[in-house]
Amino acid sequence: MSFLPAELIKKKRNGLSHSRDELQFIVNGFLNGELPDYQMSAWLMSVFFKGMDPNETAALTDIMLKSGRTLDFSNLSGLTVDKHSTGGVGDKTSMILAPIAAAAGARVPMIAGRGLGHTGGTLDKLESIPGFRINLTLEEFQEQVERIGVAIIGQTAEICPADKKIYALRDVTATVESLPLICASIMSKKLAEGIGGLVLDVKFGSGAFMKTIEAADTLAEKLMAIGSAHNKRVAAFLTNMEQPLGRFIGNTLEIGECVAILKNEAYLSVAPESFTDCRELSLELAGSMIWLSGRSTSHAEGLALAREALDSGAAWSKFQELCSAQGGDLSRLPTPRSCLEVRTEQSGFVSALNTEMIGIAAIVLGAGRLKTTDSIDSNAGIRIHKKIGEAVKEGEILYTLYASGSGDDPQVQRSRRMLLDATTISLQKTDVPDLIARRKVN
Amino acid sequence: MSFLPAELIKKKRNGLSHSRDELQFIVNGFLNGELPDYQMSAWLMSVFFKGMDPNETAALTDIMLKSGRTLDFSNLSGLTVDKHSTGGVGDKTSMILAPIAAAAGARVPMIAGRGLGHTGGTLDKLESIPGFRINLTLEEFQEQVERIGVAIIGQTAEICPADKKIYALRDVTATVESLPLICASIMSKKLAEGIGGLVLDVKFGSGAFMKTIEAADTLAEKLMAIGSAHNKRVAAFLTNMEQPLGRFIGNTLEIGECVAILKNEAYLSVAPESFTDCRELSLELAGSMIWLSGRSTSHAEGLALAREALDSGAAWSKFQELCSAQGGDLSRLPTPRSCLEVRTEQSGFVSALNTEMIGIAAIVLGAGRLKTTDSIDSNAGIRIHKKIGEAVKEGEILYTLYASGSGDDPQVQRSRRMLLDATTISLQKTDVPDLIARRKVN
Repeated sequence: MSFLPAELIKKKRNGLSHSRDELQFIVNGFLNGELPDYQMSAWLMSVFFKGMDPNETAALTDIMLKSGRTLDFSNLSGLTVDKHSTGGVGDKTSMILAPIAAAAGARVPMIAGRGLGHTGGTLDKLESIPGFRINLTLEEFQEQVERIGVAIIGQTAEICPADKKIYALRDVTATVESLPLICASIMSKKLAEGIGGLVLDVKFGSGAFMKTIEAADTLAEKLMAIGSAHNKRVAAFLTNMEQPLGRFIGNTLEIGECVAILKNEAYLSVAPESFTDCRELSLELAGSMIWLSGRSTSHAEGLALAREALDSGAAWSKFQELCSAQGGDLSRLPTPRSCLEVRTEQSGFVSALNTEMIGIAAIVLGAGRLKTTDSIDSNAGIRIHKKIGEAVKEGEILYTLYASGSGDDPQVQRSRRMLLDATTISLQKTDVPDLIARRKVN
Repeated sequence: MSFLPAELIKKKRNGLSHSRDELQFIVNGFLNGELPDYQMSAWLMSVFFKGMDPNETAALTDIMLKSGRTLDFSNLSGLTVDKHSTGGVGDKTSMILAPIAAAAGARVPMIAGRGLGHTGGTLDKLESIPGFRINLTLEEFQEQVERIGVAIIGQTAEICPADKKIYALRDVTATVESLPLICASIMSKKLAEGIGGLVLDVKFGSGAFMKTIEAADTLAEKLMAIGSAHNKRVAAFLTNMEQPLGRFIGNTLEIGECVAILKNEAYLSVAPESFTDCRELSLELAGSMIWLSGRSTSHAEGLALAREALDSGAAWSKFQELCSAQGGDLSRLPTPRSCLEVRTEQSGFVSALNTEMIGIAAIVLGAGRLKTTDSIDSNAGIRIHKKIGEAVKEGEILYTLYASGSGDDPQVQRSRRMLLDATTISLQKTDVPDLIARRKVN
């Protein structure tokens, strides 16, 4: 069916609902180049302002899913499972929980994304491992999941090509934060993986796309509804992103932190206990993945299996197996060079961190992209010395910056100022928020 | 100054105001290709939803004005004047009032536009006259205004190039109907013409961008304020667009109607008295132009001079002079071929016309563009047999369609259905609305 693109933009702009045919015309037209990107971005901004009803969201998910190939793991015993995070700052759990769950017998066919907005992306992180191939063919991907239980790749041209193209455009047109677009993008990609179960890590707070737990809950409900409609088992965690997860932001730095957690050792002189938040969240999410895969009969039992896989070193072995299966050489992981220490002029306690601003400060150093064509400096990033509730004294280090330039570099200085602006120090000690605020199952 | 485009889009999307530097970055970046069109269209849609404050609107007007050359007619005696219409369906007054005003001694340097949204454009209409050159150089334009008192050209690359590029993008991204964008676009172009006075025809109703007289009044006030700030005399007419103006829609057809009005004769068997609405509005607008040019001391006196210029044949001579000065050969104006008559199955009175839908029905026939790269069929269009308040009998013709294809053509049939949908026939006779609802002067 054919429509007038400008009239469809106008229709959404005026708050009306699209038919499935109209959505198909828009999405497929954009994908095959008949609907130019400037019309697509105007339509996306209209969706940002006017939303979509549940029928539109479901249709959009299905159209994006069917724009490409879908995988089928029904030949394997048990359900394949995956985890999806709505994105945070310093969120590196994928690289920890995927090997944990696989080591515990689950099958994890993970199609991951790149940095979006102020958050990092699993693919950018994995690519900081020399040689790591995120672009396996779907045949290689499927074979690897069957053979070692886990594979992590980027969205190939064959999987949800419509989502891939739309996602890139949203990133540079301030249309990321749209609930129906987020839901359709997440679920189309995950459903294409051929999974039987999905664990959602829906983040809220200053570093998340959802600033409040209520907004995160709404998003979780919408995602779970799409999952249920497709007969998938879905569990959702609402987790706190009022501060970065773990101690490092940046691609190589986060891989280093993951390795330290998997091996239970220090990284860049940061002791393993400093990584507790990131480790525990990874275990909880992996526990639910194990449960949904059918390898345990409850989340609690799954969590125990996850902890065993981590403590025994099985997860670390699985991560090494994953890296070498995909060509990654962990022995050649660089050690990033620090260029500036950011110190406080106040004494007291860290009471709040503007985590979105911290994420942008890392991007300014080169850890992410300001526009899609930008290249990333894998070794750029930030070490967070002080987290919420921790005491600081005048002159102490709050952050260490890692970048290729010198500390006087304008971008480094800009990042420094952003970090100081992002950090609130008070005389009274603040309670540390619970990392896992709510757990939901459908 | 440099900004992150996605952050600027987000800023407007979130309802914040831009600084002049930010607007300059956006507009000039778009003009020189550094800001891609997909970011510009997302920003434009954000402006559609969140608006602009008066300072932003004034800054945007000024930035667009200064993106190109401006003309200077200060060597001429009296003020140069122009008319601007906010756009309607069947609105062909420019081709009538410009020669009337010029014949009465005013100087009219008119830079006109193309069809926008569901409305037609003066340039598209003039181009249906074989040989008519709308692309004079600015030197030729200025010389012709000085020599014969009138010239009508398209926006050259030198005049408000930023507006030209933005206008083309708005047309295809459903971002036409934004008050600050409309105001800045209109006024930057008119101020660049070097005019001393401006008559605004601000339309309201089902065929206008402003659906209510209140909205039209607000637009008129904003435009007049920008004019005053630039020391221009501005008069505004609020005119009714609840039905098409005159009897024809389409490029060649409208030129034919203009010639009939200027010569006071029939066109395609339609008697001159059927064109009364279009003729009277043209006279009123020309009367104010004559007054603002200083050729009369009041609107009433200007109107009398306008009527004299029309009745005496001086305006018709001036139109012929205009056409031949710009290479147009009226003797070769084609006679469009009708392909379908649309008849009513009801008897009664035409009580309402969805004029926007009628405009789109004409575009569907080929009279306008669905996207910027579309070409126009000059001879396509619609004759309106019955206007509001007129009696109809079952089986009578409501519309005659003109298109290159046959009456069975899917586009012709689609247009037919739209026209029937757009026409309300009632048993009771409806009053014909006043064409000129309000007149304002600053």
